[in-house]
Amino acid sequence: MTSGNIRIESMIYSFNTDGEIDIIDLTEEIITFVRKTGILEGRVTIFCIGSTGAIACTEFENGLISDNKEILQKLIPKAAGYIHDRIDNNAHSHLRSTLLGSEITIPVIDGELVLGTWQQIVFFELDVHKRSRRVVFQILGVDPSH
Amino acid sequence: MTSGNIRIESMIYSFNTDGEIDIIDLTEEIITFVRKTGILEGRVTIFCIGSTGAIACTEFENGLISDNKEILQKLIPKAAGYIHDRIDNNAHSHLRSTLLGSEITIPVIDGELVLGTWQQIVFFELDVHKRSRRVVFQILGVDPSH
Amino acid sequence: MTSGNIRIESMIYSFNTDGEIDIIDLTEEIITFVRKTGILEGRVTIFCIGSTGAIACTEFENGLISDNKEILQKLIPKAAGYIHDRIDNNAHSHLRSTLLGSEITIPVIDGELVLGTWQQIVFFELDVHKRSRRVVFQILGVDPSH
Repeated sequence: MTSGNIRIESMIYSFNTDGEIDIIDLTEEIITFVRKTGILEGRVTIFCIGSTGAIACTEFENGLISDNKEILQKLIPKAAGYIHDRIDNNAHSHLRSTLLGSEITIPVIDGELVLGTWQQIVFFELDVHKRSRRVVFQILGVDPSH
Repeated sequence: MTSGNIRIESMIYSFNTDGEIDIIDLTEEIITFVRKTGILEGRVTIFCIGSTGAIACTEFENGLISDNKEILQKLIPKAAGYIHDRIDNNAHSHLRSTLLGSEITIPVIDGELVLGTWQQIVFFELDVHKRSRRVVFQILGVDPSH
Repeated sequence: MTSGNIRIESMIYSFNTDGEIDIIDLTEEIITFVRKTGILEGRVTIFCIGSTGAIACTEFENGLISDNKEILQKLIPKAAGYIHDRIDNNAHSHLRSTLLGSEITIPVIDGELVLGTWQQIVFFELDVHKRSRRVVFQILGVDPSH
C-alpha cells in the first residue's frame, strides 16, 4: 500500500481517424498521461465518447491488426439488412462497438500501467467515415508527494 | 483537477424486465443518481448482478435495438445443443452475457457523465423469462463542498 | 455512504494454466483478498496482464464451461488463415481475448463483492500452450477503521 492522498485527474484526448475500420494505438499517450500526474498506485479508465467506437487490448502487430478487422467484418457484416440502416448507414458500426465495449480500466502500480509487453490499448474507429474523436483518460490514485 | 475530498456512494437500482431479449435504457436513472451525489469529478461503475444479464453502450433507437437482438440470436443461437441445457434452459443466455460483459465504468467531469449524444447505457435481459433485476450504480469522486 | 478514509491496495495473483482453452474460477481468491483489506465500500478491478487471456463473469458449471469453449471455437476458429499466424501461431487467441475483454470492475458493499449466486469471475487461458499467468486484483474504497 502506497501512503498519501487520493487524487483524481481527467483529460480528453482528441485525434482524427481514417474511417472504417481504423485501429489506433493509444498506449504511449496513456503512459505519458499517467507519468505526468505523479500518481504511483491507482487505476486509469479509458472511455470512448460515442457509440460507434470501441476501446480494447490487443498486440499492436500489423498482421493482427488486419485480422481484427477481418473478424469484425465476418462476425457482424456491413449492410446485412439491419433496421437501423433504413434511417442511417452504420448499424454494423454500433453493433461492433457494443460487442467490443466502450471502456477499459487498467491498474497502475509503482507509477506504471501493468500491461504485458505485447499488450497495447487501442481505439477502434468503427464508423463508416473519417472522424474526429474524443477519448477520456481518467486516473484515480495515490500520489505520495501530496 | 477538482479540489475536495474523495467520496463514494452506492445504490442498487431494481426493476422488472419483459424477458428474452429485453433491452432497457438506464441512462436517465444513472444521470439522476450522479447529480444527487454532488460529485463533480470521478467515475460511475454500473454492474449487473447475475450472469444472464449484461451492461453495454448503444444508441437507444428502436431499429438498432431490434438489430442488437437479431445479431445476438445469430452469433449465439438458442438451444444449439449446449451441455448446460441438459440441466437448465438458458445456456445461450449465459454465453451472450459473457460476450457482452457485466460492467461498465464511465467518467464524470464537471458533474456530468461524459457520454456522446447518441450513446446510452443499457441493460440486456438475456434470460429466458421475465425477471426482477438489480444493477449496482457506484460513484467515486470529488465533491468540492465537503 | 460509509465514512472513513479512502484506501487502495493492489496484489498480483500468479497461477498456472493448462493451456487452450482453460477457464479458471478466481472468485474465492478475490473474496479472500477483499476481506483481508477490511474495505467496506468500494470496488475491485481484476485485470489480466497479457493479450491472450481474458477476464469475464459466468456461472462456473461444468457443462457451461464446455459451452463457453465451444462457442469461442465456433465464433473465432483456430488457424483460419490469419495473417498474424505467419509470424506466430496464436492469432485466434488474441482475437478471442479482444472480444471477451481484459478487465472487470466489481463493486464492494458491506465488505462483500456484489455478485449473484451463480455469477463467478473467471480467467480464460486463450493461448495455445500452458502458461504461468499474472492477474492484478486492485481494491479502492473506504475502511471505517482508518
